[in-house]
Amino acid sequence: MNAIPSSQAGEAMQPKAKFRPLAVNQIEVNGFFGPKLDITATKTAKLLFDRCIEARMLELVDPLLPNPGIVIPFQHNNTVTTQMFWDSDFGKSIETAAYALNRHRDGELEARVDEVIDAYGRLQAEDGYLNSWYLRIEPGKRWTNLRDRHELYNAGHLMEGAIAYYHATGKRKFLDIMCRYADCIDATFGPEDGKKKGYPGHPELELALIKLGRVTGEQRYLDLAKFFVDARGQAPNYFDEEAYARGEKPEDFHFSTLEYCQAHKPVREQREVVGHAVRAAYLYAGMADVATEFSDASLDPALEALWAHLTERNLYVTGGFGPSKENEGLTYDYDLPNDSAYAETCAAVALVFWSSRMLGRAPDARYADVMERALYNNVLSGLSDDGTHFFYDNPLESHGHHHRWRWHRCPCCPPNAARLIASIGTYFYGLSEDEVALHLYCDNKAEMAVAGSRLTLTQKTRYPADGLIALDVAPETPTRFTLSLRVPAWAKGYSLTLNGEKLDASPEKGYIRLQRLWQAGDRLVLELDMQPQLLYAHAHVAADQGRAALLRGPFVYCIEGVDHAAPLNSYLLKDGCTISTTSIETWPDTVALSINALVEKQKDDALYGEEPPMREGANLMAIPYYLWDNRAPGEMLVWLRREA
Amino acid sequence: MNAIPSSQAGEAMQPKAKFRPLAVNQIEVNGFFGPKLDITATKTAKLLFDRCIEARMLELVDPLLPNPGIVIPFQHNNTVTTQMFWDSDFGKSIETAAYALNRHRDGELEARVDEVIDAYGRLQAEDGYLNSWYLRIEPGKRWTNLRDRHELYNAGHLMEGAIAYYHATGKRKFLDIMCRYADCIDATFGPEDGKKKGYPGHPELELALIKLGRVTGEQRYLDLAKFFVDARGQAPNYFDEEAYARGEKPEDFHFSTLEYCQAHKPVREQREVVGHAVRAAYLYAGMADVATEFSDASLDPALEALWAHLTERNLYVTGGFGPSKENEGLTYDYDLPNDSAYAETCAAVALVFWSSRMLGRAPDARYADVMERALYNNVLSGLSDDGTHFFYDNPLESHGHHHRWRWHRCPCCPPNAARLIASIGTYFYGLSEDEVALHLYCDNKAEMAVAGSRLTLTQKTRYPADGLIALDVAPETPTRFTLSLRVPAWAKGYSLTLNGEKLDASPEKGYIRLQRLWQAGDRLVLELDMQPQLLYAHAHVAADQGRAALLRGPFVYCIEGVDHAAPLNSYLLKDGCTISTTSIETWPDTVALSINALVEKQKDDALYGEEPPMREGANLMAIPYYLWDNRAPGEMLVWLRREA
Repeated sequence: MNAIPSSQAGEAMQPKAKFRPLAVNQIEVNGFFGPKLDITATKTAKLLFDRCIEARMLELVDPLLPNPGIVIPFQHNNTVTTQMFWDSDFGKSIETAAYALNRHRDGELEARVDEVIDAYGRLQAEDGYLNSWYLRIEPGKRWTNLRDRHELYNAGHLMEGAIAYYHATGKRKFLDIMCRYADCIDATFGPEDGKKKGYPGHPELELALIKLGRVTGEQRYLDLAKFFVDARGQAPNYFDEEAYARGEKPEDFHFSTLEYCQAHKPVREQREVVGHAVRAAYLYAGMADVATEFSDASLDPALEALWAHLTERNLYVTGGFGPSKENEGLTYDYDLPNDSAYAETCAAVALVFWSSRMLGRAPDARYADVMERALYNNVLSGLSDDGTHFFYDNPLESHGHHHRWRWHRCPCCPPNAARLIASIGTYFYGLSEDEVALHLYCDNKAEMAVAGSRLTLTQKTRYPADGLIALDVAPETPTRFTLSLRVPAWAKGYSLTLNGEKLDASPEKGYIRLQRLWQAGDRLVLELDMQPQLLYAHAHVAADQGRAALLRGPFVYCIEGVDHAAPLNSYLLKDGCTISTTSIETWPDTVALSINALVEKQKDDALYGEEPPMREGANLMAIPYYLWDNRAPGEMLVWLRREA
Repeated sequence: MNAIPSSQAGEAMQPKAKFRPLAVNQIEVNGFFGPKLDITATKTAKLLFDRCIEARMLELVDPLLPNPGIVIPFQHNNTVTTQMFWDSDFGKSIETAAYALNRHRDGELEARVDEVIDAYGRLQAEDGYLNSWYLRIEPGKRWTNLRDRHELYNAGHLMEGAIAYYHATGKRKFLDIMCRYADCIDATFGPEDGKKKGYPGHPELELALIKLGRVTGEQRYLDLAKFFVDARGQAPNYFDEEAYARGEKPEDFHFSTLEYCQAHKPVREQREVVGHAVRAAYLYAGMADVATEFSDASLDPALEALWAHLTERNLYVTGGFGPSKENEGLTYDYDLPNDSAYAETCAAVALVFWSSRMLGRAPDARYADVMERALYNNVLSGLSDDGTHFFYDNPLESHGHHHRWRWHRCPCCPPNAARLIASIGTYFYGLSEDEVALHLYCDNKAEMAVAGSRLTLTQKTRYPADGLIALDVAPETPTRFTLSLRVPAWAKGYSLTLNGEKLDASPEKGYIRLQRLWQAGDRLVLELDMQPQLLYAHAHVAADQGRAALLRGPFVYCIEGVDHAAPLNSYLLKDGCTISTTSIETWPDTVALSINALVEKQKDDALYGEEPPMREGANLMAIPYYLWDNRAPGEMLVWLRREA
């Protein structure tokens, strides 16, 4: 065999360049995600527009329409209404529609997007400023409350929508609009004298500016992203100064502490994930992007400590985080309640963003494993199986009263999950000058250029139904580059062949890195062990003691009331119980799990009785967590009772 | 023996009359509650005044002081501020002070109360109306929002304060003020043509009017209480009509449903405990009072069904109820989460009120058992051991972040728990024309009149430290009456002697009813089995499965972090484990419990590991629940993990 695992390849194993994702239209997604993309493209994308417009968002944007005024009442002692975030909902919906158009050309949907873009064009101020709330509801008040009012956040989402729409359609109108707005922001904020030293109260624009810099080639957008990262939390605190300027006291901030928006200290000094979960992960994603684009290692200690703090103390097994509804975020270490878990869909989406950007520096399965866990569990659960209903919060235990929404007063999650799923292919690969890293496995065909050659990669696989992945590597001409294959930490074993011969390479940071002269016809076959397994939580996670979670591959499993006769917490399993794969009628392609268990029954109907319950044998049927609440309403449980 | 258990006494076993409590000054409380009354009298009563005045309540009441305006901002889309409830806080504080003065004469405290009473005298309108919010903040708006604004509720608490102060000091000024206000309310509301058909949004006035009728002998106050009970929930709904009159839509009610204030249907049609917990139990207490005073059996089906619904499906083992913070109340059957339990102190206080009034009809240990459980657990936990700090919500599990407050934006609980504890003696006995029922045991001496004779009852007991209760029965002259002794359901055995000879009477509805010619020198000795026991919850109580609660006598026990090295949910006990009584340094008079248990330890520090935890032997130290959070901050757990 002439494939040299890169751990034996000397200098070559050091990545020469940073890793960037592919564009959505470089990957044809089939297999597990294929039908999900079809539903998003044909149903969810349109429905998002319907519901945005039904919520009166277009009336606020379009100066030709009568001003709807304040549709959603103020909260937080009259500082905020979710109506202030409407631009972001439109931005994410346009982004979703753009990815949908990539997959299925649809003139009607494209015309609807163009209508909204035209309205934004009419709305845009002379100097490029573009925010529907401030232009139509509170003119003259722009840039007075970055902390609370999502002004820069909205800009970011509109930019991401514009970039996606440009990629999908080649039309520049929206991209040009948003570049003018980016220029307006750049003229307003920055390190230069006379510019404001502010930054987004809700990070997001950082990510958008990195994308905008990449698509336009304009360094100043990358620089502005870096400025926002660098300026955050510096003294004197901008948000406090801004509060004084509004005649308010900083201590009257509704969320009490600037930890809420991660502006309590400069980002390079931050070591613990705090505050609002979505804000947190967007910020850290932005930091990772800046670290990659600027090769700025000074951000690494913060990024590594934040990552460890999240994943070692504050991450749900489903890849969600932020347990509390109060601040939509973090509380204290190991606080991971199940039935009251907030675990917002947007936070898991944000964690996918952060994880994927941590991979911008080099392949490291620590990040990809978390990305995969969040994606297949807390993110996918955000959308109903038919793409029409949405979870905002994603508890790990329900007593039958938690269901997906048709819409939400704060509809941030539906288009966020939708745009991620619709663009999922971009998370499969990381591409540097001379290396292709395979982060996620799914049947797909991807086109890219590596080490000067065009390359087609084709994954043939039923993954995650099973762990067998065939990879056809087809460079246009024989080309030397590194192909890095992730071996997930959950895989207790794996085997790898190249052109039918076994390879003994061992993973480095969770990736088997194969450097060789690749040529058309090369076929790698990776088989990952998909044995179901039980996980046990740290003793400090109070809610999970005496319990175990059931996993297989990337999926966390749950049991649902509809499949069981007794209340779900009546069941318990013994460590070492038999777990076998099975199927379930509703989803024939889904691997369900069957578990030998016990069920407890009390002797009478008393609320509190003096006799311990009796026990008998029982069988549990478990399905992937993300599929819950798609059949009959009822109980759901991830952490099953266990005994030694 | 010539004591005839009443179950063998034919006609005589039917209670001839209804049961009323004794007045506070008829009972000298010693034993377990003695020191608690001393602390309430010498510390808490004064502190309540300090904190009310610090909160600026007197400024709102006294027209001689500058009007403080709106001190606490509006909530619920500008319909409510807790400042509207300030009269109730003053009312309960005066009531507490009155009971305190009964126990310890204190000229300074009395002068402070008089100062507040004088201010209320100055505030009262010509026609008797008396409400600090409407007289000083929104004049002209009285009686426009009974649903949300606690107007009649405030009146009730001021009346109860006035009655207690009259009993304690003999001074009539406040009582006269409140009778004038009661007359004003009576002239405004009632079944007669031209009167409003409204009733309290937050029930409470019903209880006060019953007391006012009893103390003044005025039937019209009892009639008005009955009117408020009868009018509630009748169609057309008064609260909806009132909303229309304010130009509001009933469906915009912040709490969505009139179940919140139990006005969704007439009370006689109600069968399930719903909505705000304190409102609910105050209403049901008022219904029980009306049932007793008017011998109105038409209320019984509702009262019995509501009682069953609460105690068979919705009651915490600590005697608390109302799991949800959202509505401070009920959600759905068997929803009894532990760490997020709201279980407001006021709701448990209200349940003591309701239970005690269910005993107004006849002795029945179902009610007294619940009264005792609520009192010794969820009510007592409301006050810190030193009487200075207060729990609003009373979870059954804490991870170290729940502590008593110095004060609260809505300070309803501190004076509510304080007034109950300060008047606890009135809950010990129920007195009818010819029967004395002993509901609660505690060392005390009570004076009363029964069957035409003066009677002194003296309980000598260390209860609940042990179950031995000596009762000296001393009628002024030999008198025939029934003495009824409760045998709690938790007592797995008991023995009873009269003048040294064993009595074999068995309880009827949980009371041993002894009818005889009693004479001075008669001594009953009751010994209740105080064996610790484990309780197991119904299979539908998800949070308690795989767990057991530990009880001894009236106390529910908990374990606290300060006594244990490992996280509390790491411990588990086996059914049938050894539980022994022990003592604890901080509280030498308290019976603590020591339990043989196991502790689980994970093999490494991973958040989620693949190996089940190891186990070793461990010992648990449990203390009565009500004492938690009086030492070091830390974890607390009521429902301990168990295995068969």
